[in-house]
Amino acid sequence: MKASNFYISTLKEAPAEAELISHQLMIRAGLIRRLGSGLYNWMPIGLRVLRKIESIIRDEMNKAGAIELLMPAIQPSDLWEETGRWDVFGPQMLKINDRHDRSFCFGPTHEEVITDIVRNEINSYRQLPINFYQIQMKFRDEIRPRFGVMRAREFLMKDSYSFHSNHESLKETYEKMHQTYSRIFDRIGLKFRAVQADNGAIGGDGSHEFHVLADSGEDEIVYDENSDYAANIEVAKNHPDKDKFKTCRGIEVGHIFQLGTKYSEAMKAEFLDELGQSKPIIMGCYGIGVSRIVAAAIEQQHDEKGIIFPESIAPFEVILTPIGYDKSVDVKKMTNDLYQLLIKNGFDVLLDDRGLRPGVMFSESELLGIPHRITISEKTLTEGKLEYKHRKDNEAEFILFNSIINKLQGC
Amino acid sequence: MKASNFYISTLKEAPAEAELISHQLMIRAGLIRRLGSGLYNWMPIGLRVLRKIESIIRDEMNKAGAIELLMPAIQPSDLWEETGRWDVFGPQMLKINDRHDRSFCFGPTHEEVITDIVRNEINSYRQLPINFYQIQMKFRDEIRPRFGVMRAREFLMKDSYSFHSNHESLKETYEKMHQTYSRIFDRIGLKFRAVQADNGAIGGDGSHEFHVLADSGEDEIVYDENSDYAANIEVAKNHPDKDKFKTCRGIEVGHIFQLGTKYSEAMKAEFLDELGQSKPIIMGCYGIGVSRIVAAAIEQQHDEKGIIFPESIAPFEVILTPIGYDKSVDVKKMTNDLYQLLIKNGFDVLLDDRGLRPGVMFSESELLGIPHRITISEKTLTEGKLEYKHRKDNEAEFILFNSIINKLQGC
Repeated sequence: MKASNFYISTLKEAPAEAELISHQLMIRAGLIRRLGSGLYNWMPIGLRVLRKIESIIRDEMNKAGAIELLMPAIQPSDLWEETGRWDVFGPQMLKINDRHDRSFCFGPTHEEVITDIVRNEINSYRQLPINFYQIQMKFRDEIRPRFGVMRAREFLMKDSYSFHSNHESLKETYEKMHQTYSRIFDRIGLKFRAVQADNGAIGGDGSHEFHVLADSGEDEIVYDENSDYAANIEVAKNHPDKDKFKTCRGIEVGHIFQLGTKYSEAMKAEFLDELGQSKPIIMGCYGIGVSRIVAAAIEQQHDEKGIIFPESIAPFEVILTPIGYDKSVDVKKMTNDLYQLLIKNGFDVLLDDRGLRPGVMFSESELLGIPHRITISEKTLTEGKLEYKHRKDNEAEFILFNSIINKLQGC
Repeated sequence: MKASNFYISTLKEAPAEAELISHQLMIRAGLIRRLGSGLYNWMPIGLRVLRKIESIIRDEMNKAGAIELLMPAIQPSDLWEETGRWDVFGPQMLKINDRHDRSFCFGPTHEEVITDIVRNEINSYRQLPINFYQIQMKFRDEIRPRFGVMRAREFLMKDSYSFHSNHESLKETYEKMHQTYSRIFDRIGLKFRAVQADNGAIGGDGSHEFHVLADSGEDEIVYDENSDYAANIEVAKNHPDKDKFKTCRGIEVGHIFQLGTKYSEAMKAEFLDELGQSKPIIMGCYGIGVSRIVAAAIEQQHDEKGIIFPESIAPFEVILTPIGYDKSVDVKKMTNDLYQLLIKNGFDVLLDDRGLRPGVMFSESELLGIPHRITISEKTLTEGKLEYKHRKDNEAEFILFNSIINKLQGC
């Protein structure tokens, strides 16, 4: 992508109401723009990050055998009346009346809708297990939305729901989702921890939260250095001897949950077992806050210059910052050749052809958190070299034109 | 994709309320399931069709230099007050109050939001022209939603908005969008016509609708057999001699529009021109009904057996229907080999490994509208052949295993 054909809009200052560093940096780097309280426009460069996260999640969910569908955002109240959640969900639910004065909500979650689909579609144990997912905008009417997309009202979520004829099958899918979530956060390039969460009646191993580790995280996590054990503070309080453990802070970006028959019993989602007996379908649910991951990744990795994106979700993997692109024929030719070479080798490249001053180009690429920066100038050309700098490096280095692909692949 | 890892759910009968053939077939083929009045779940097989259309549109919009972003579905009323549309849009707008009793709507369109973004972002002629688009769910509270996704309340739309410093630039982008839309509908594989539409004050060439031609279309189109001229009936009434022209019926799936300064004047979206003078930005807008295209394509092409999808948007390009997949080792091996070969050659293949009776498999693949069907059986194998049938063919033909790739590529 050439910058002149794209839209980049950075700011020197973040607005005063932005308290969190990720919120400040997302505004300054032009990833998002505020539309209203808890409502954000995803600007072109931010949308690229969001789509890359979405595509990693989709890929891993598909590999795990989950099947994508898409449910409406607007849901009729009747289904929520069946589970009793219409009255108990609370003011986070955005309730709506249509022109005929019928009640709806902008879905904060989709257990009722998917259970409605499944009770109409599934009737035999032979159709089970099955795991449906969607990636879709949800709405929760937070009382004081703040922290940017970390706690926005309209947000992008991956939610999946699995259906089973017995508890062993639920546990198997639950384990598979646990592993899938770990792979997703690994691929995105985040330091994270899966922690035991409180899920009321079902018991200690029936629910896990996935936390991106960051000092600014709002949740306290208790963990054992000598084992895999980690739990959120509420669970830890009731169980282990807290003194034995260390604590750290995390941002919840995923939650997996063995639901059991709560929804299927309320909504009569039943199947016929091997003996022809009707039983409630056993359910699990699995959520990931897709848009929240963008903010969490920035909380985890940034410095005083800006965002440090992991390569897998950076808006671009490589930025070319030619000096004198429109003044020197040689610089322009070399830059264009390099641009084509990188694209041919599968890199996602931004060519900054806007004729900005070098200092402005450099600070912008650092603010945006693009992993690899390659500078081409008359000076580097006379030496047959390019100037290379990784976003995490303190100093640039000069490397031969021929070694650039190896350099990028080796990082 | 193996059918046993996917979810296919077809019905013998469509529900009584489904009047349109596309609505009946989309329900029978399991592309959609009704959640409520004008609200549809996109089931896995339907979502594949929707995503393929989306991806063709995205590709062509990007090629035309448009830049993707994503605006919230929920919009504050303030912006609509500025243009005066909060009161005049009418009951199709789904109005919402949040927990603080502030007014919002579920966006039926996004002129106000994009104009708000642009007035904050753009201030110089040097930043123009620019063309932003999004692909996103919208809501229009139809009084009597019917005809399935043809006139659903929640629907997927591609909407773009271009911004210009002068009218020549607007006309240039408008022309480019006209061509881009034509390419999109060509690539999807639809017979369509661009027709002059009424756009009130701006004049006859300031607005075109794109119609998919189908006898069941709700719009009447007037056209000249000897020229490119076509117009919708309202425009034609006021202009040409109707007797000279032929008429046909169409389904509106796209609309391009030279907006001028209606929104920028109301919302003070201004730029500084070359002389440093402040002027309202000149706008165009361009919409495509993404989910509606699925229904329109089916209205245009179907027969008594079911849907006939164009290859580019079929849920799968090829279906393998082995007879005796789990009974004959040879059939299973040949089928699996063929499946791998087709995937390696870039085909989107469904392998029906569910052990259904041949007649059931065949009618299902015809109902789903999958273009290429390949049957493998003990009988075909002894002759070293495969049974091939295109969805539009009346009879199957036997072809050599080695010719199958050529056959599929040649169709």
